[in-house]
Amino acid sequence: MTKVLAIDVGGTKIVYSVINENGEFLKEIKRTSTPKNIEELQNLFKKIIKEYENEIDIVSFATAGAVNISNTSVESSTPNMPEGYNKLNFSQLSNKQVYVENDANAAAWAEYKIGAAKGEQNTITITIGTGVGGGFITDGRLLRGKSGRGGEVGSMKINSKGRICTCKRKDCYESYASGTGLKNTAYETALNDETFKYSIFKNKTPNEITTYDIIAGIKENDEYSLKVFDIWKKDLIIGLINIANIFDPESIIISGGMGEFIDTEEIQNAINKEIVVSDVKVKLAGAGNYSGMIGAALLACEKFSTY
Amino acid sequence: MTKVLAIDVGGTKIVYSVINENGEFLKEIKRTSTPKNIEELQNLFKKIIKEYENEIDIVSFATAGAVNISNTSVESSTPNMPEGYNKLNFSQLSNKQVYVENDANAAAWAEYKIGAAKGEQNTITITIGTGVGGGFITDGRLLRGKSGRGGEVGSMKINSKGRICTCKRKDCYESYASGTGLKNTAYETALNDETFKYSIFKNKTPNEITTYDIIAGIKENDEYSLKVFDIWKKDLIIGLINIANIFDPESIIISGGMGEFIDTEEIQNAINKEIVVSDVKVKLAGAGNYSGMIGAALLACEKFSTY
Repeated sequence: MTKVLAIDVGGTKIVYSVINENGEFLKEIKRTSTPKNIEELQNLFKKIIKEYENEIDIVSFATAGAVNISNTSVESSTPNMPEGYNKLNFSQLSNKQVYVENDANAAAWAEYKIGAAKGEQNTITITIGTGVGGGFITDGRLLRGKSGRGGEVGSMKINSKGRICTCKRKDCYESYASGTGLKNTAYETALNDETFKYSIFKNKTPNEITTYDIIAGIKENDEYSLKVFDIWKKDLIIGLINIANIFDPESIIISGGMGEFIDTEEIQNAINKEIVVSDVKVKLAGAGNYSGMIGAALLACEKFSTY
Repeated sequence: MTKVLAIDVGGTKIVYSVINENGEFLKEIKRTSTPKNIEELQNLFKKIIKEYENEIDIVSFATAGAVNISNTSVESSTPNMPEGYNKLNFSQLSNKQVYVENDANAAAWAEYKIGAAKGEQNTITITIGTGVGGGFITDGRLLRGKSGRGGEVGSMKINSKGRICTCKRKDCYESYASGTGLKNTAYETALNDETFKYSIFKNKTPNEITTYDIIAGIKENDEYSLKVFDIWKKDLIIGLINIANIFDPESIIISGGMGEFIDTEEIQNAINKEIVVSDVKVKLAGAGNYSGMIGAALLACEKFSTY
């Protein structure tokens, strides 16, 4: 049995446990907040690794940011992580083998290996939370590209409405189909659509309306909220059709916080009505909130194990 | 040595020759027009095959249309081919092994194996002619998807201007970035932009202006033609950035008739200014007009040869 210390590194919290080559947890899952400076973060990593080092074979990180092709470092600056994160030498953190993978890629691998897409050789996992991340499995392999940075579907331009993305470019998929995108759509709809006048949120200013307001409004059958959500879904679907036509996947797996608000059957039907390739299945993620850790552990096992 | 009878089947002409496993031509390249009905087409295939059958090991077709995952038949109806083409049983045409591949995929494989992308494990070939086709090589493998239909980048929505594509959907990449797209852009610009009034084409009606007019107009330094071409290039670049961000390829190879009018360095600089992955190279196709035949032959060799 191979034992992997898997560490999921996000902007606000760090989650870790020990996982075997079947994706099973061998230890309690622990969590802690992400330190705000790079020295503290490095020390925290060392402390976590020291705790398990005698009983594990590999250390594997699932992390925000673009990971290099040899899975040893983070190459991009990631806005939510401490400055200098892209200079961190992960290999020197442990005397065991160390592996690093982007969290969206790791999640896709977990879905493919043990989750909702198990056994499907061509599958896409779209993580919809604050942003939009993509992990692409083609022919049973993780798409990483020449530098390891592949899968940046959030940067795909899907229309020409002129919405400014957090990356400063216009009309990125992420600025429409993410949770932040829903808030953006709520704002624009409040400015332009008269349903807002009769909405339960009419006493708020347009920029005060949150993603959660809209979700709550839908449950209240609020016409404005329903309209906002409908526009959001249409934008989500455009991007999913774009990638389905390129990858012709068996399934698209929806992961991330927004997943629970999505009717996968509705999305699946809308996609299959329009795609030019063969029909896809749309499913919610099956590997749960720990898909990043699990995927990173399984990928590390594939790379380093000799079993 | 493996000898492949390679047949490139297009809507207007059929081109064929014998090619070895290194992509070298062993016979003169012959061509004939594509018959208008399926019986004639089938008889033509049989006649061509009979001529070479005693000296070859494999018959391989590069064809318009979506090819099934086992590379034995065309599954979609293809507008320019005789009715019933998608019912044709390619395997029964010969007593040798028969292989079928989509022409855009075959072209990408030829570029990867012996053309402009030789040795690059992650490369995309975009064929820009009447339409837009895509062939994607990831990690040294041809992306085919679950059904063999993958790579349909021409159907990617890139904006929301409302242009109707030949497929009846709105705002497909193909309706902007193809030769037909250039004609569409010429039409819309003639209606909306005052440079048309002073253009060398001002005596034509907007729908009379052809792709070739614009190309000719650029050489004459006609302001309207330059403007049309500039809009067309911007649309072309949006789509190339979208796919570069997903695939993180080493190169994008431009193939097809429109290639000769494109300044690859200009396109490359524009892409690299905006992509979030690492820089790509943009190059013109190196495998020439016979990349379909060559790619189909090489793919068939990989599938059937035991050398």
